[in-house]
Amino acid sequence: MTVSSLVQLRLVWCCWTLPRWQMNGHKRSLAVWTSATAKWTLKQKKLAELYRIPVSRPPILSGTSLLGKGALSTTSISPKEVMLTSERYGVQRLPFSHVSDSDLAFFEHLIPGRVITDPDELRLFNVDWLQSVRGCSTMLLRPRTAAEVSEILRYCNKRNLAVNPQGGNTGLVGGSVPVFDEIILSTALMNQVISFNSVSGILVCQAGCILENLNTYLEELDFIMPLDLGAKGSCHIGGNVATNAGGLRLLRYGSLRGTVLGLEVVLADGSILNCLASLRKDNTGYDLKQLFIGSEGTLGVITAVSILCPRKPKSVNLAFLGSPFYILIETSGSNSAHDEEKLNNFLEHVMASGLVTDGTVATEDKKIKILWSLRERITEALTHDGCVYKYDISLPVERLYDLVIDTRARLGKTAKNVVGYGHLGDGNLHLNITAESYSHSLLNAIEPFVYKWTAQYNGSISAEHGLGFKKKHYIQYSKPQEAVLLMQQVKAMLDPKGILNPYKTLPASS
Amino acid sequence: MTVSSLVQLRLVWCCWTLPRWQMNGHKRSLAVWTSATAKWTLKQKKLAELYRIPVSRPPILSGTSLLGKGALSTTSISPKEVMLTSERYGVQRLPFSHVSDSDLAFFEHLIPGRVITDPDELRLFNVDWLQSVRGCSTMLLRPRTAAEVSEILRYCNKRNLAVNPQGGNTGLVGGSVPVFDEIILSTALMNQVISFNSVSGILVCQAGCILENLNTYLEELDFIMPLDLGAKGSCHIGGNVATNAGGLRLLRYGSLRGTVLGLEVVLADGSILNCLASLRKDNTGYDLKQLFIGSEGTLGVITAVSILCPRKPKSVNLAFLGSPFYILIETSGSNSAHDEEKLNNFLEHVMASGLVTDGTVATEDKKIKILWSLRERITEALTHDGCVYKYDISLPVERLYDLVIDTRARLGKTAKNVVGYGHLGDGNLHLNITAESYSHSLLNAIEPFVYKWTAQYNGSISAEHGLGFKKKHYIQYSKPQEAVLLMQQVKAMLDPKGILNPYKTLPASS
Repeated sequence: MTVSSLVQLRLVWCCWTLPRWQMNGHKRSLAVWTSATAKWTLKQKKLAELYRIPVSRPPILSGTSLLGKGALSTTSISPKEVMLTSERYGVQRLPFSHVSDSDLAFFEHLIPGRVITDPDELRLFNVDWLQSVRGCSTMLLRPRTAAEVSEILRYCNKRNLAVNPQGGNTGLVGGSVPVFDEIILSTALMNQVISFNSVSGILVCQAGCILENLNTYLEELDFIMPLDLGAKGSCHIGGNVATNAGGLRLLRYGSLRGTVLGLEVVLADGSILNCLASLRKDNTGYDLKQLFIGSEGTLGVITAVSILCPRKPKSVNLAFLGSPFYILIETSGSNSAHDEEKLNNFLEHVMASGLVTDGTVATEDKKIKILWSLRERITEALTHDGCVYKYDISLPVERLYDLVIDTRARLGKTAKNVVGYGHLGDGNLHLNITAESYSHSLLNAIEPFVYKWTAQYNGSISAEHGLGFKKKHYIQYSKPQEAVLLMQQVKAMLDPKGILNPYKTLPASS
Repeated sequence: MTVSSLVQLRLVWCCWTLPRWQMNGHKRSLAVWTSATAKWTLKQKKLAELYRIPVSRPPILSGTSLLGKGALSTTSISPKEVMLTSERYGVQRLPFSHVSDSDLAFFEHLIPGRVITDPDELRLFNVDWLQSVRGCSTMLLRPRTAAEVSEILRYCNKRNLAVNPQGGNTGLVGGSVPVFDEIILSTALMNQVISFNSVSGILVCQAGCILENLNTYLEELDFIMPLDLGAKGSCHIGGNVATNAGGLRLLRYGSLRGTVLGLEVVLADGSILNCLASLRKDNTGYDLKQLFIGSEGTLGVITAVSILCPRKPKSVNLAFLGSPFYILIETSGSNSAHDEEKLNNFLEHVMASGLVTDGTVATEDKKIKILWSLRERITEALTHDGCVYKYDISLPVERLYDLVIDTRARLGKTAKNVVGYGHLGDGNLHLNITAESYSHSLLNAIEPFVYKWTAQYNGSISAEHGLGFKKKHYIQYSKPQEAVLLMQQVKAMLDPKGILNPYKTLPASS
């Protein structure tokens, strides 16, 4: 098959066509697709249908517009209707203190005007974005500095008050909202860039900076953030690090384990751990910051981040290809002619082999964004089905779609949709099962089936979403008992009273 | 300046010339050099002189040729002459048990024929490669499996016997040899590849595999190891991970924090921690393996490693360029014509700007290896000066060479040579000061001067070598007291008796 015949192809659902295939390539991105065994789909329903869904973005919760926007009104369900987590899951409250008038007075004095106790204002922060879990916190604190966070935690630790650190509240496993009446500690007002070095590409910023804002800031300086995800308009970099967010650029730039160079963290007792190095290499002792990356706010509150940012690519192409499955491939490079030639060769190869039958390529930023939105808004589109049971699975790539097929067969008509999408390049399947409403019996048909299936193939039951509240009891499907015990020891060492994000990440010590 | 004029250039010391500049490029590698403030040198003495030094490689200690090769005879100093660490540094032995006859009997029964007690055979393993520190261990154990390591540590922990885990013994900070009579636990016979997945590029192998052997194994499968360093012919992958080795490919493929996907570790009490996942993403609980990466054998013994390996590049070019400094730039890509064009553009730019006045480019593997050997053998070449004081510093790249200039000015003629080389792309300076023999007064002139200078610019006093025995007391120049305290807590939690690699990495708890 020649290049000229490729030019004829376009997808019927597209609202634009390109005069010819415009291409650029990067070996690392493309290598994945050349696995002959790998197949993929965005969604089983027709894409045209998906594209028409009137999806809306997650609410943008910036520091200055944090409150009173009624951001969740973009979805049809009111937060009032979300069942309390404690009721739905039958959780027992741990014996933490209750917030008293003198506590309120202390915090009002410490951060005047930044203590929220109005129930209407608090509603938004007690419910997760999926509207699947709900706490009943009566207080939200909005510190601006690590010193303020330190004072808050020192006080809470002494008083035995539980604390729920919260970034953009875009988590999908119930890790970012209280289970009971934990004090919500918001990073929203810690939203300052501290420094950027254009020689090294190292950005240092406060934890509450919104990911998309950081990316916009960097693009003007000819750099980009090393991570990108659908929730970028709301999520905070501190939350990204606390949950070790993966996202759409992991294949290209690696994980946060490699790109995060330093952290400032406030520990449960209020002490400030300043490991905010801005160095590519530092082998002086144990790498403590790694403890906090992915610990979901259970070991400390991240207040600032030092992160290595790549140069903004000079040429970017997006190929959207179809056969039994749909795949998005983004390439980035420094020379558009070179990239075009590489992508061209790749497309010729996959068309000739029959792996791909249809596709379009975009090079313009606007068109690239539209294509990406198809992928990024799947999460939100699914919420329109009603109740969504979400699973975020890592598997050997050759097994990736088998779980969707097996789950679909198992559930039959008891589920509305069983959908698999995700990240082919890093073996990350987002398995989503939808139904009109929540039901225990459907949940019991899914779990532990999905976890057992995953464990059988040495997969992970949480690839990038974390364990949060919803998955903590299933950790043993991916980690041996010795590891869980050691994690519990680490937790006990760093937070002996367990005040930080209780009921999350780890099962209680036996 | 045009391409044709570039063709005329060649370095007089080269034993070959190229008919023209042959080039290929990769943006990430080249970006660093374009920093106008960055200057660099391999060595102050003329390269022709350096090239004539009859340097020899570090001894190759493979599993089957571990003993009796007198490998250190390639240098002129006999191990007998190395002063005992305990005497030179005035260290007090901690109250560990001494190895008894019944201990010997236990180990002989556990791993028959793999317990070394002959003093002549042991000599090699008691002295570091630099011949700068020496212990007096009377026993070396060579387990083949994690189960055997587990039995050994369980016994040693119970008996309060100190243990010095040892890989290829190529460390530069005295971390890999005993300080007193610690039992040496060698990983040399744990040298099996467990699996390799050519779709994901994930290698799983035992800790004692020699880095170069792994790379040779992978090259046949069209992959390479994500790290490379001068000691590759001797160093073990387990030791690389335990010391978080940086090396020559860090800029291209990132650090071990990102590429190591899983570890199997035996803890001090003998329990086996199996976190040997082979997944790109896994967010189920705290990332325990990170504790052991870079902990220098003080928290556990790494027995197996899962690591992400990149595809072998289809085109590799090496540019060796000179102005006031010399720089090696390796590019790797998938298309030699594209890479040549990119490198060409870069060279035209740096020649036109006057940053570079001279250079050669190699594309053939053999010539690339010869050029790299100039860089890789500097460490060894320096040992011919006599005594070498080694510093491995991270700095903001614009400050990188200032420390060499300031140190040279400070020491004057008391030093034979003050040499700076290293890794420009990641801000890593190897500062080396040579003298005929060791002297306290010279050491006192260097330290803490170098550490204070580094701390002043927020650098790290150990970029990639670790702290080992020699640098542990200087950790406070790069880490705050809160961090050191927390590290000591981690150590106490994982190794309460302190049997694992004592006297290393951390100062004693106060």
